[in-house]
Amino acid sequence: MNSVEGASIESDLDGPHIAEVVAQQLEAMLGAGNYDGVKTLLEPVQPVDIAESIGNLPLILQALAFRLLNKNEAIEVYEYLDASVQQSLLDRLRSGEVLELVESMSPDDRVRLFDELPAKVVRRLLAELSPDERRVTAQMLGYEAETAGRLMTNEFIDLKEFHTAIEALTIVRRQAPYTETIYSLYVTDRERHLTGILSLRDLVTASPETKIGDVMTREVVNVRTDTDQEEVARAIQRYDFLALPVVDRERRLVGIVTVDDVIDVIEQEATRDIYAAGAVQAGDEDDYFQSNLFAVARRRVVWLIVLVIANGFTTKVIASNDDVLQKVVLLAAFIPLLIGTGGNVGAQSSTVVIRGLSTQRIQALGLFKAVVRESIAGALLGLLMLVFVVPFAWWQGEGPLVGAAVGISLMAISTLAATAGASLPLLFHRMGLDPALMSAPFITTATDVAGVWIYLRTASWLLSNVTN
Amino acid sequence: MNSVEGASIESDLDGPHIAEVVAQQLEAMLGAGNYDGVKTLLEPVQPVDIAESIGNLPLILQALAFRLLNKNEAIEVYEYLDASVQQSLLDRLRSGEVLELVESMSPDDRVRLFDELPAKVVRRLLAELSPDERRVTAQMLGYEAETAGRLMTNEFIDLKEFHTAIEALTIVRRQAPYTETIYSLYVTDRERHLTGILSLRDLVTASPETKIGDVMTREVVNVRTDTDQEEVARAIQRYDFLALPVVDRERRLVGIVTVDDVIDVIEQEATRDIYAAGAVQAGDEDDYFQSNLFAVARRRVVWLIVLVIANGFTTKVIASNDDVLQKVVLLAAFIPLLIGTGGNVGAQSSTVVIRGLSTQRIQALGLFKAVVRESIAGALLGLLMLVFVVPFAWWQGEGPLVGAAVGISLMAISTLAATAGASLPLLFHRMGLDPALMSAPFITTATDVAGVWIYLRTASWLLSNVTN
Repeated sequence: MNSVEGASIESDLDGPHIAEVVAQQLEAMLGAGNYDGVKTLLEPVQPVDIAESIGNLPLILQALAFRLLNKNEAIEVYEYLDASVQQSLLDRLRSGEVLELVESMSPDDRVRLFDELPAKVVRRLLAELSPDERRVTAQMLGYEAETAGRLMTNEFIDLKEFHTAIEALTIVRRQAPYTETIYSLYVTDRERHLTGILSLRDLVTASPETKIGDVMTREVVNVRTDTDQEEVARAIQRYDFLALPVVDRERRLVGIVTVDDVIDVIEQEATRDIYAAGAVQAGDEDDYFQSNLFAVARRRVVWLIVLVIANGFTTKVIASNDDVLQKVVLLAAFIPLLIGTGGNVGAQSSTVVIRGLSTQRIQALGLFKAVVRESIAGALLGLLMLVFVVPFAWWQGEGPLVGAAVGISLMAISTLAATAGASLPLLFHRMGLDPALMSAPFITTATDVAGVWIYLRTASWLLSNVTN
Repeated sequence: MNSVEGASIESDLDGPHIAEVVAQQLEAMLGAGNYDGVKTLLEPVQPVDIAESIGNLPLILQALAFRLLNKNEAIEVYEYLDASVQQSLLDRLRSGEVLELVESMSPDDRVRLFDELPAKVVRRLLAELSPDERRVTAQMLGYEAETAGRLMTNEFIDLKEFHTAIEALTIVRRQAPYTETIYSLYVTDRERHLTGILSLRDLVTASPETKIGDVMTREVVNVRTDTDQEEVARAIQRYDFLALPVVDRERRLVGIVTVDDVIDVIEQEATRDIYAAGAVQAGDEDDYFQSNLFAVARRRVVWLIVLVIANGFTTKVIASNDDVLQKVVLLAAFIPLLIGTGGNVGAQSSTVVIRGLSTQRIQALGLFKAVVRESIAGALLGLLMLVFVVPFAWWQGEGPLVGAAVGISLMAISTLAATAGASLPLLFHRMGLDPALMSAPFITTATDVAGVWIYLRTASWLLSNVTN
């Protein structure tokens, strides 16, 4: 968490824009050898903006600019750099500088960096860390990705129940420079079991001689090291917390997760849902626009091939019903409209259901009720669209046959698509799979097959039973 | 913001589940008249969970349960209740109780409530508020929806530069019960202009006699009352702040926005993007699953009708090219595959571009470059799919004609769809419109028309120039 909530930016510029402007000035000053100018320029700029400016510099200037930062700032800036810039800096700094940097990083940021580095480099750096930092880092690297254990930091303040408020304040003052937050304080017993929690607000408003045990809250919302990061984020969001304690299996306090990390998790999970809705595979990190074209193609082609194969079934259905089309070729003209509509209705249902599962709003309604609701909505929407589509089809088809076939199948397809769109993600959710796999493109393609079959069979039946 | 970060929940239960369990026990106890039991039951439960439990109760028990809460807790719980439950409670409580409740709410929560109430009720409540609260509330109601002015609270601590650290700490202690956060502190001059900012961390670590003017940060990231809520959220997220000051046109400090409100904004904006991607109109609030079926149909039918009309053009294109289909009816069998693939490629491109705009990652690359990248990716993906599709079409078509027509148009459609998918949202963005309006369903339907036209014209050309 950022301790100073200030620093100069022209208030009309947004973040990325500031970084761009600063990068330009920075490049000019570094080129001219005006190093004092650089210091004056960067002094009032926020660390995250400095990081982005340095990332925008030509490779050879990055290490130079970085070296001009003072030590404390350098660490904060480094933590905000993109993984690729972090790596290239490591190659360019002297090994003493590297070690000092890595040693001073927050454990959670250090673990994030180590995730990106080659195993050989990680082993060497780990061996050179101080014993304390090495132990913490190795432990965190042992937790699975995207769990509370990976997200947490071990830099928190823990107090004892027998401390008085005034003693506790002294501890807080002393430890403030080394902790991620001083606003959430934790109370542990001799075995480091978490026994309570209090906020700095509670502490500063307590009278000086009160015992911590008397002002703390004993029953604490906490998560375990193996709790999924999304669940951690939901808890902090739900309860409006600034931080959440993380305990191990023996309920010993091992770390805390802070709200700033959680915002990034919520955004990452939303990106994942949105990408799934667009049939794009989410990458490890979400800088789609940083990755090269072949990585981009790889993240998209798998889904496309799956969908092409699924579409092959639609082709087969049409090919094996070509006798109807042979008789009334105009029927073909309505195939895109019917399957398109089915796809859109299905996409709507799967979208609201998948989002409802993510935001936990659908659970309040009940899963079965949600499916029934969507089915009825699908039928209702089909009915509303009939008003537009059937007259058009009748007119275009110069007679009732095409109109009737289109109308009947539109109702059927719309109801079916809504039901499938709602139930398939829920089914996947129940089976413990990611419901987003059953997102719009898949539902669309799946309803295509059924839609075309219903349409052509209906037309065929009408042709042989009504017109003849 | 929640000041006590604790309270009992069994740590293995997630929030919505806890609320359900509590609601069941609550209903049983209220039914049995065991009011002391209710108090014991609710004592360790988090306010947000109590709110959800009360929301789950039958209407007649809601007011009863609410009255059993102690006064401070009642206000916090009330702020977390759904708008509909808030309203029905207002009807059931005595007018004295209502007034006390509304008077004690945070201004931002009060304004959110007033947004939902009938104008007549709002006027009456406003008139009965204390002059201070009335002024603040009327002022906030005057700001446009979804701006910083609506999101902020005026309950912050402001200090003067001439205060010493020890004096400031005394002020913080005294004002703590009445403010949303005590962790971000603001410094203003006599005209209430914002001159600096400091954190409680800075304050507790400063030596007692230091002047605030010497420890504060003078250059402050701030927003104006009319700044869009999404921009406010991005700033807090980017800089890892706990709160952000809001100033008026004259740079006078009028309020602060806290990180907990920002998390909800980020989620709300993500829901909006996801709904747009699924052609669902976002509602004022996002409880899709709370609204009735007709509201649901209304939020979806407009998009569907637009898409049906767009699909009508595809129908026209096919109908006016039916001579080709008449000759080789099997060509119709590949229409769904071709337009489906075009739709999927286009959806992928529009998805990554729209998300990239939201998370401000695309700006770093440059808009024009992003479109070129997507076009090349589209061509590349088309090429990869050819490997699967052409042999299938050749075999199914019992000859090269269908295979060639499908192959050529697949390449063209895939490139075109990716280009359109990337450029249309960017165009909308440039024109100051919401890029999400150019999302997957629209791109899909638009590429259908072009795709079918390319396909049938290609087949027709091949038929007359190659086979004959």
